[in-house]
Amino acid sequence: MSIPSGAHTSIILRLELNKEIAVFGSIATAIGDSGGDIVAIDVNRSDKTTTIRDITVNVFDQKHVELIVQAVNAIPGVKVIHVSDQTFLLHIGGKLETTPKTPIKNRDDLSRVYTPGVARICMAIHEKPDRAHSLTIKRNTIAVVSDGSAVLGLGNIGPEAAMPVMEGKAVLFKQFAGVDAFPICLNTQDTEEIIAIVKAIAPSFGGINLEDISSPRCFEIEQRLIEELDIPVFHDDQHGTAVVLLAGLLNAVKIVGKQLSDCKVVVCGIGAAGIACSKMLMAAGVRNIIGVDRAGAIVRGEVYSNPAWQWYADHTNPDRLTGSLSEVIRGADVFIGVSGPGVLKVEDIKKMAADPIVFAMANPTPEILPEEAEPYVRVMATGRSDYPNQINNVLCFPGIFRGVLDCRASRVTEEMKLAAAKAIASVVSEEELNEYYIIPSVFNANVVERVREAVIQAAYDSGVARKPQPTASKQPVNQY
Amino acid sequence: MSIPSGAHTSIILRLELNKEIAVFGSIATAIGDSGGDIVAIDVNRSDKTTTIRDITVNVFDQKHVELIVQAVNAIPGVKVIHVSDQTFLLHIGGKLETTPKTPIKNRDDLSRVYTPGVARICMAIHEKPDRAHSLTIKRNTIAVVSDGSAVLGLGNIGPEAAMPVMEGKAVLFKQFAGVDAFPICLNTQDTEEIIAIVKAIAPSFGGINLEDISSPRCFEIEQRLIEELDIPVFHDDQHGTAVVLLAGLLNAVKIVGKQLSDCKVVVCGIGAAGIACSKMLMAAGVRNIIGVDRAGAIVRGEVYSNPAWQWYADHTNPDRLTGSLSEVIRGADVFIGVSGPGVLKVEDIKKMAADPIVFAMANPTPEILPEEAEPYVRVMATGRSDYPNQINNVLCFPGIFRGVLDCRASRVTEEMKLAAAKAIASVVSEEELNEYYIIPSVFNANVVERVREAVIQAAYDSGVARKPQPTASKQPVNQY
Repeated sequence: MSIPSGAHTSIILRLELNKEIAVFGSIATAIGDSGGDIVAIDVNRSDKTTTIRDITVNVFDQKHVELIVQAVNAIPGVKVIHVSDQTFLLHIGGKLETTPKTPIKNRDDLSRVYTPGVARICMAIHEKPDRAHSLTIKRNTIAVVSDGSAVLGLGNIGPEAAMPVMEGKAVLFKQFAGVDAFPICLNTQDTEEIIAIVKAIAPSFGGINLEDISSPRCFEIEQRLIEELDIPVFHDDQHGTAVVLLAGLLNAVKIVGKQLSDCKVVVCGIGAAGIACSKMLMAAGVRNIIGVDRAGAIVRGEVYSNPAWQWYADHTNPDRLTGSLSEVIRGADVFIGVSGPGVLKVEDIKKMAADPIVFAMANPTPEILPEEAEPYVRVMATGRSDYPNQINNVLCFPGIFRGVLDCRASRVTEEMKLAAAKAIASVVSEEELNEYYIIPSVFNANVVERVREAVIQAAYDSGVARKPQPTASKQPVNQY
Repeated sequence: MSIPSGAHTSIILRLELNKEIAVFGSIATAIGDSGGDIVAIDVNRSDKTTTIRDITVNVFDQKHVELIVQAVNAIPGVKVIHVSDQTFLLHIGGKLETTPKTPIKNRDDLSRVYTPGVARICMAIHEKPDRAHSLTIKRNTIAVVSDGSAVLGLGNIGPEAAMPVMEGKAVLFKQFAGVDAFPICLNTQDTEEIIAIVKAIAPSFGGINLEDISSPRCFEIEQRLIEELDIPVFHDDQHGTAVVLLAGLLNAVKIVGKQLSDCKVVVCGIGAAGIACSKMLMAAGVRNIIGVDRAGAIVRGEVYSNPAWQWYADHTNPDRLTGSLSEVIRGADVFIGVSGPGVLKVEDIKKMAADPIVFAMANPTPEILPEEAEPYVRVMATGRSDYPNQINNVLCFPGIFRGVLDCRASRVTEEMKLAAAKAIASVVSEEELNEYYIIPSVFNANVVERVREAVIQAAYDSGVARKPQPTASKQPVNQY
């Protein structure tokens, strides 16, 4: 498969040079002629006959790297023994560390952090287990749990290979919302085993973020864990996407002057994300949703062997539309794509109602490219950062978990997700709002705080917040 | 139960004062008269009728705190609503955080740490799973796993209440050896479930430190995990104690001029630690070990229902001694206690061979108090920090795991434990060695490095180190 490379980046070539044959000048020339820019040279090792050098080179992309390696390898007496790029170097040793909040400087510290002092804390929790929420890392720590079965667009690559994604997610949790997140990748893909394991490790955590678990197992795993645990369980691939999609859509309909409850919405791709998006839209008042998958529209009254589709058929498509995407899209106000590249055609958009809204969120290649769709749509969003209006889960999960931890919520309700979506949408002010700015940037610092506040309020309203509400309104919720 | 308090410490009293009745001077007087030293006063909240104040007071111990609280509560219009001491305050929110090693400052960083750049790392690991050892946190991260069934001397207090100990252990791992350790407390005490769970979460970790799991389950859990996982699994309560005990004993016999292989050693308390200590002593060459438990000596040739005791009977007590501790200790060179308070009497020591060595390691109260034993012993060690010669696991586990991670060992062999013990013993030089200094302080910075080096060498010698040995001897082993 082809994986898009990072931005303009640098690599380190580790070369073995035969001292008698190789001349360094010829290497520099070869790299320069290939368009590479040498920025540093380090001698790593040297003996009588060979020397090992690390050459840092600025490059454009993966193809460029291959070109340079080829050119260098062609020089007599020179062998490229290793190529490291910045992305790889960044991952050496992983992306996270587990650090003490207070150092142990002397025996006094040791006696408080560990024995004998720690025994009093243990007994305080033993007497009242609820105290674990304030006296242990449970207060601010969640698990990012995956079985590696549906990682990014890479498929079932297994738990070890999934780790870099889960570590990255943990980095985002900490950086954007101060949430301590620890990646747990499971060496099993059995539904019952995953449920049992997550339940068993739950004492260490204040919440569970499920990630990259394939459909349909993800539905049962999430549902059962929500029912059987007293901490929030949130499958981000489903609900994170749904929340951010709704945030964007709330602003998009404002621009075109329509009401969500009057809109005909076609959702393309009825997997985990498509179903979650549809449920979120219903919670927000959308009444006319038509789901389309490879076999065409999912139709009310039909019988489906996939129980998730059966539920979907029973709750959507009130007009019992049948046929392909090109047929059911006629007159639609909104297209939501969570399917695959190129699924939506210009001809399809032309059949939509006035002021079409197209969210083409397939990654990395959207259902239709913005440059193709642009002449025919009013508002367009994708999952990509290199086009306007990126629908990115990073806008949701840090603030959601910040909120649930701060009010010690036992679960994430529909009301809380809805509140999160409205909070994200609200960050774009009326004055700023336009076709190319319906959703804030992931680096907008207001997002997490808005989402957090909205989620906490909704948690108290839903009755799932277990932390006593502060009496003085000025007190921050996360005080102790 | 009575838990020893920390050192001289300070507390924070949160008081609710009725403004019309209470005078602050009377509070200050009451605290002062009780021997408390007020060091800070903060107004937390105030309204028309009441005010909430936090008073920080230096105190001696828990009894002193109770005295002060009583005195303050006796003042009309004053109510103590909360008492926090430094140990509790230190635990608010837990003792660990999970932090990114490199911050995400912009979209370029984001694209390397997370999508799309991370996909290349995932695929690199997918192609060669062994790369997880260098490209994920597995390289430097271990799990500290407990089921809360035998926590410190507190017993079966459950997973939530065990967390502060496991967090404390993780703090020590990081602080003393730079090992990232994450506490996992399990909500099950079923042997098979624990084995299955630890196996399932193993992809995230480079090693497993089992902790505070009760006997005899701890034996099977550890043994099975060692066999079924390709990362080191180490039950510290067994082997950490055994390694440090042996380190101390190696130096103790030097002082008395005896050979371990000639010594008669009585081990008192044949639980998990006692058995592990005995095995370690055998590995170090001790041939004459007599195990004693509540029912007396464990005798070769007898039949025991406990399989661990049966193994013990088959491998110790070559002279088939029978009877109580007081009987079998006659002529013993060494007493090793991992049992309970006051089990060893002065009369027993008097029966021992010349230059008795007594390791009374029961916590918090040893088998015999040093002040009682002193006139009759040559070398004495305990588990306590307030007497000389503390046998403390902290001397072992950080260096052991630093070593296994750095050479990517698949397990911890007997040779590696033996090497660790000798390394710890070697930190005390011939010149320094005396009856009151047989073992280094836990704050001795040389210990971890010595243990690490010895463990790595033994791992290569045992054939369990999977990292290619560096070719140039000057290269540090943890290079990438």
